[in-house]
Amino acid sequence: MAKERIDDLGIKGYQIIQKEKGFCFGMDAVLLSGFVSVKAGGRVLDLGTGTGILPILMEAKTKGSYFAGLEIQSEMAEMAGRSVKLNHLEDKIEIVEGDICRASAIFSHDSFDVITSNPPYMIGNHGLKNPEETKAIARHEILCKFSDVSLAAKKLLKNKGTFYLVHRSFRLAEILYQLSKDGLEPKRIRFVYPYKDKESNIFLLEAVKGGKPRMIVEPPLIVYEAPNQYTKEIYKIYGMNPEEE
Amino acid sequence: MAKERIDDLGIKGYQIIQKEKGFCFGMDAVLLSGFVSVKAGGRVLDLGTGTGILPILMEAKTKGSYFAGLEIQSEMAEMAGRSVKLNHLEDKIEIVEGDICRASAIFSHDSFDVITSNPPYMIGNHGLKNPEETKAIARHEILCKFSDVSLAAKKLLKNKGTFYLVHRSFRLAEILYQLSKDGLEPKRIRFVYPYKDKESNIFLLEAVKGGKPRMIVEPPLIVYEAPNQYTKEIYKIYGMNPEEE
Repeated sequence: MAKERIDDLGIKGYQIIQKEKGFCFGMDAVLLSGFVSVKAGGRVLDLGTGTGILPILMEAKTKGSYFAGLEIQSEMAEMAGRSVKLNHLEDKIEIVEGDICRASAIFSHDSFDVITSNPPYMIGNHGLKNPEETKAIARHEILCKFSDVSLAAKKLLKNKGTFYLVHRSFRLAEILYQLSKDGLEPKRIRFVYPYKDKESNIFLLEAVKGGKPRMIVEPPLIVYEAPNQYTKEIYKIYGMNPEEE
Repeated sequence: MAKERIDDLGIKGYQIIQKEKGFCFGMDAVLLSGFVSVKAGGRVLDLGTGTGILPILMEAKTKGSYFAGLEIQSEMAEMAGRSVKLNHLEDKIEIVEGDICRASAIFSHDSFDVITSNPPYMIGNHGLKNPEETKAIARHEILCKFSDVSLAAKKLLKNKGTFYLVHRSFRLAEILYQLSKDGLEPKRIRFVYPYKDKESNIFLLEAVKGGKPRMIVEPPLIVYEAPNQYTKEIYKIYGMNPEEE
């Protein structure tokens, strides 16, 4: 078995198990966790949960009552389940092994208040495949396309439920088109720019099932002030105090 | 007749005639003129040209050979024509009175390299109508909807021709959806934020007829450094040197 490591999440003393050479969670997931709102008692599903990072961070940051994470790769799902146990969160977080394309047969329709996803972002036949298989599946649209993710969210969300996702800016038009087509109305978007004078690489999006057209483009989120120095807002999202660094 | 004034455009000594109480061109048009590229000899059409500001600025800033401006309001079209004469540009700029909904019967199909538009941005039945009729028509979707503008661009652009527009950020999802639906693939977008910590109010967009999906989200364009003080980039787009102000 590939070597594992345990990382501290810097919130509530929670930890996460990751593979040293497999797919590790990145800034995408942390930024998304800072963008999501869950009302008290809300039921939350993460589509393609990987290490389980999003359900664990959402449990820490919100008052939601139930968090499910769906993951197709059995080795990843098993490891995510161990991270849940490590943090004694079995009563609130459930990791389910399964395919996003079959999500609407696994979970009840119209049953979630919030769905989150950090889906594979590279188009299946585009760019080099990552030689490590778990990374390739997490990053490329090999096992599921964005339209599968959007359709699953549409079926599983309650009416007026909210879909939150992080995706790559180069796919903005395609993603907004698919969501609009599926009746998941984009309502709030935030573009993340590595530096204030650089192109955006990722965006955070909130869409509402059955929402009306009208959206907010939030202030730009700049990641770096200077090389190796995050902006104050990034330190804040990570729960770090730059003065103490 | 409503009182007129003549304003200097700060480029090539060009001037523009505007009504003191009617619709005057704003920052939208100037920012769009700084975002557009026209190849040497290119044919350019502006849909809903108003005062004629965009064809006049495009003539000044690019090497295009022919610039047409379509305007439905006869009083505005007549005034735009006088601005063209005032600058001795009758050989290169043609102002045509007519309806965007009928544009594909007025101009030849597949005949333009570039189409620009700063269309009405308020939804017809949304918000207060401006009491001045010319302003209301320029700002609200009374006489034409965005789908009419998009359809006209689709029909009149050459294959791989470019559609540039400026629109309101709150309508981002609708605009991208319509363009994608009409085969005008969004390729490049820039969000304009009044201040670095404020929501975006407008965006500049480039779409290519028959283009492939993949887009660039350019660095944020911030307007104000502080109240009454533009950022360096805005001064540059306006062709002004802040040191001399």
